[in-house]
Amino acid sequence: MKPYPAAKAYRLLEPGPVVLVTTRAASGRANIMTMGFHMMVQHDSPPLIGACIGPWDFSYAALRETGECVIAIPTADLAGTMVDIGNCSGRDVDKFARFRLTESPAGTVRAPLVAECLANIECRVADTALVDAYGLWILEAVQAWTDPDRRERRTLHHNGDGTFTVDGKVISLQDRMVLWKQFQD
Amino acid sequence: MKPYPAAKAYRLLEPGPVVLVTTRAASGRANIMTMGFHMMVQHDSPPLIGACIGPWDFSYAALRETGECVIAIPTADLAGTMVDIGNCSGRDVDKFARFRLTESPAGTVRAPLVAECLANIECRVADTALVDAYGLWILEAVQAWTDPDRRERRTLHHNGDGTFTVDGKVISLQDRMVLWKQFQD
Repeated sequence: MKPYPAAKAYRLLEPGPVVLVTTRAASGRANIMTMGFHMMVQHDSPPLIGACIGPWDFSYAALRETGECVIAIPTADLAGTMVDIGNCSGRDVDKFARFRLTESPAGTVRAPLVAECLANIECRVADTALVDAYGLWILEAVQAWTDPDRRERRTLHHNGDGTFTVDGKVISLQDRMVLWKQFQD
Repeated sequence: MKPYPAAKAYRLLEPGPVVLVTTRAASGRANIMTMGFHMMVQHDSPPLIGACIGPWDFSYAALRETGECVIAIPTADLAGTMVDIGNCSGRDVDKFARFRLTESPAGTVRAPLVAECLANIECRVADTALVDAYGLWILEAVQAWTDPDRRERRTLHHNGDGTFTVDGKVISLQDRMVLWKQFQD
């Protein structure tokens, strides 16, 4: 994993991949969940992310308690693992052990990075105003990481029904985005 | 356009496509913008969507004034149009005319459907608590539409830098999503 600017976290999340979220409870225990309901809220100053994690998620208590999590982005080769992570609870299972995932130390938060993922974004809770109503957290991206050597880089998009669309070809329309040049460096 | 259950709007938005948003000001004037910062917030009862539309967007005033919009989903054949819509302002341009898009009447809101798109979701503002802080609106999906006859169905995902990933192949992991069977009907 190589450092990646938190201010460019939008490049990782705006395309809408299904992600994993890690937390570490104050007890020291790490957990990981699968999440499809997330968005960028603000590009930078600071970079903000919206994410739905409700009391029905085991990770909710650790996020409340610590105010920290990591958003990790899995690729097509991890599709089965990503689905299986979402189909059991940290209440019952040590998911890092069961799915043979590697907890890698983060730079600024206690929640672990997932070494097997394409990218990891360290987050701190920035606003809880809509947590009680919808489980909607506003997170600040404080540090990010990517694995430049990974061969499989195609992410997955959940169609909501247990099917996933794999990334296809990339097209560039940079020349036409004249009002948005500041985001193309 | 054929009716599509609003309660299944998550199937259209959870994959994270770049979308268009239409509004109609009280004056009667329609506008359309491009949006990459959105998410599902709640599957159903009611279906809720988070969307970032700030005072920097010309559509913001109409959304504030009317509490209504339509989220339309363009496909790969509309990539250039989608980018060009995001690179001019309704302040200066009648975008439906300039881009030869067809305003189609919605069922429950005054904002128009975009006949050329794969799907349209009629929305009403449900919660404005985070609008002043981040331009983050909570919208309720009240009615949806899809075009079952459209041949090009691949959506686009904005990588944040003027490049877009086109949908590739679809894989099914429905058999492994045992905890989520209720979303597969």
